[in-house]
Amino acid sequence: MDLFYVLLILLVATRAFGEVAERLAQPALVGELTAGVALGAVVASFPGIFPTLSGLGDNEVFVTITDLGMFFLMLFAGLEMQPRKMFERSASSLGVAFGGMVVPLALGVGLGWAFLPDSPLRTAQCLFLGTALAITAVPATVRILTDLNLLDTRIGQTIVSAAVIDDVFSLMLLAWFTGMIGAEEPSGLLELAILSGKVVLFFTVTTLIGLFVFPWGGRFIHHLRVHELEISAMLVAAFAFAVLAEVLGLHFIVGAFIAGLYFGRKTINVQSYERVRNTVSGMTFGFLAPIFFASIGFELNFTSVVEIPGFLALLIACAFLGKIGGAGLMARAFGFSRNDSLVIGVGMSPRGAVELVIAGIVLKAGLLVGDSDIVRNLFSAVVIMSVVTTVLSPIILARVFAARSNHD
Amino acid sequence: MDLFYVLLILLVATRAFGEVAERLAQPALVGELTAGVALGAVVASFPGIFPTLSGLGDNEVFVTITDLGMFFLMLFAGLEMQPRKMFERSASSLGVAFGGMVVPLALGVGLGWAFLPDSPLRTAQCLFLGTALAITAVPATVRILTDLNLLDTRIGQTIVSAAVIDDVFSLMLLAWFTGMIGAEEPSGLLELAILSGKVVLFFTVTTLIGLFVFPWGGRFIHHLRVHELEISAMLVAAFAFAVLAEVLGLHFIVGAFIAGLYFGRKTINVQSYERVRNTVSGMTFGFLAPIFFASIGFELNFTSVVEIPGFLALLIACAFLGKIGGAGLMARAFGFSRNDSLVIGVGMSPRGAVELVIAGIVLKAGLLVGDSDIVRNLFSAVVIMSVVTTVLSPIILARVFAARSNHD
Repeated sequence: MDLFYVLLILLVATRAFGEVAERLAQPALVGELTAGVALGAVVASFPGIFPTLSGLGDNEVFVTITDLGMFFLMLFAGLEMQPRKMFERSASSLGVAFGGMVVPLALGVGLGWAFLPDSPLRTAQCLFLGTALAITAVPATVRILTDLNLLDTRIGQTIVSAAVIDDVFSLMLLAWFTGMIGAEEPSGLLELAILSGKVVLFFTVTTLIGLFVFPWGGRFIHHLRVHELEISAMLVAAFAFAVLAEVLGLHFIVGAFIAGLYFGRKTINVQSYERVRNTVSGMTFGFLAPIFFASIGFELNFTSVVEIPGFLALLIACAFLGKIGGAGLMARAFGFSRNDSLVIGVGMSPRGAVELVIAGIVLKAGLLVGDSDIVRNLFSAVVIMSVVTTVLSPIILARVFAARSNHD
Repeated sequence: MDLFYVLLILLVATRAFGEVAERLAQPALVGELTAGVALGAVVASFPGIFPTLSGLGDNEVFVTITDLGMFFLMLFAGLEMQPRKMFERSASSLGVAFGGMVVPLALGVGLGWAFLPDSPLRTAQCLFLGTALAITAVPATVRILTDLNLLDTRIGQTIVSAAVIDDVFSLMLLAWFTGMIGAEEPSGLLELAILSGKVVLFFTVTTLIGLFVFPWGGRFIHHLRVHELEISAMLVAAFAFAVLAEVLGLHFIVGAFIAGLYFGRKTINVQSYERVRNTVSGMTFGFLAPIFFASIGFELNFTSVVEIPGFLALLIACAFLGKIGGAGLMARAFGFSRNDSLVIGVGMSPRGAVELVIAGIVLKAGLLVGDSDIVRNLFSAVVIMSVVTTVLSPIILARVFAARSNHD
């Protein structure tokens, strides 16, 4: 891969489209995704213009750059939020997460049951659809909340903690039902119990380290002399948590988020916190995140629009209804205003990149084989649903907020 | 590659060894290189301990991370320096560059002529040895000068500009003599003239853009709204110059350096400059540079120590004598004190990573084949010379400075 050429094209395109989006009163994220879709379309139609850009989604180096983008986005989200406030919101977050998980999961499984043909893989395929709808793309959500200046507010904290909880459970589900494929015996409850044990272990270990080792490390750092050590210390913690998450079967973004969460204003001192935060913010929003969001746009594959338009429309409708009906109603029950509950429901709707990761795993595992048009186009449909929810959510939220400010 | 695991191990090892180096009154760079050598030795002897670390030097993803390390180091060097001061030093820099190029080149060619067996490849092999000695690893030099707080001083500016000039000429030489291998007709002066034309074109285009387009872009940016745009603007310029450098046959680090050089305090405004500088500094010294320097230590291959110890010792001696005799004496002629001239000579001695790049190209081009022990071990000898000069230069410089402060 022609590294610097690819980075140059993508950075120029995403920032230009981001600027246009902002001029149209849309979040920059919408522009960045559109830049990716546009570049993807240009590359697919005229492969001669940017030969180095074709096949980028399968290129190991490019995937590493986008992984670093996700990593830094989640690290930034963790840094911006304060664990104490997140604990205070834990009851409502858990409620919202529960609603935002169960309703879309049921809708997805129901959709599968109604439309997928009977086959030995049907149960796993239905669970895949359920998981695909239950997911919330935390990196996309973080970006949207940052664009709208909502990240460290009550709404933002609730959305992000609920989204993280939903993703953790969705990833457990994924590990469980992919275990079904090709297994001699169907995966049982024991396997699910082991997965739950790993998740509990992850959060226990990282919380103990975050609460006790981080403050000790912060005091220890004052005795060290090497240059730019604060950034290294933050990254070492985040890399370690990411590795731990992967070892225990979770996505690395959960590790990066938790490491950032426990690295607070007082872990070293306020100046160090500000330096680390500014550096991570610059690298994320000025460099890696736009490229990561463009890469989501790249993956679009329109076969399902042509072959199963009805099912696709239903899937997208369920994606919004599931989160608004599940997470939004739960938020209302926990005392959020009607408007804020709608914001929370829509805010949890983007499926973004985590979905692409999961759809890719399922595709490789050989789950999406069958005679029916729907099964053959399920990958394309889920990818389109993920891009559409990621593009529409910030647009809807910007309108909701414009309406609210006009009321004030 | 297990990305986060590898980054975790390397970052912890380099920062720990860097801290030990500083406690022993050595620059952190020495610790980082040693960490790489130590990890390389552990991996070679006990491949079972860190299976993911073996073969890292050939891994495309890891090479990308180290390339980004070089890129950010050179960008930082450019940002720290002021073009006006560099122009003021241009006469002495050119003189120092000339001495630091011609003397080591002659020593290398002479060494080859004296020890290499007669063969159709001998002329190209002698030129390779000459180029290997003529090179100065600008990224290593920048790091050493940063560690010693000398980067933006008269000595630092002279060393870095002379080193950049030497590298540009060395890369021209490389392109020329690798063209000799396997060519029907030997590369002639016409080819060299074309290469020179490309170099002149690169510096003309980048200087015009730096002097006229950058200030216009800096004013234009005030009208734009997207978040963290300063970092993006700086990176877009650096990626563009890096691509231009590669298209014209130069190494991308030259492009990154020149882009940083023209991005000054007033290109956007002082706050933006400080933000960009702090972000690049944090990413470079807190993350990418330590990993890059560790990767140099990885490449050590000790066969030449066993098989051609005499030649190896001579090569290392010539590496220091060439730069001290060439660049140092020229600096003395341009009015630097005896001590400062020694600093300049030693400061230009590290061959670091650029050397590894060049030796790798030459090895792949099939130049290092022959019956003699020396030819077969030439790659190992050049790599060891490059690591030894990179480790010893900062140690010698730290002593020279300690002696100087004791005098004051």
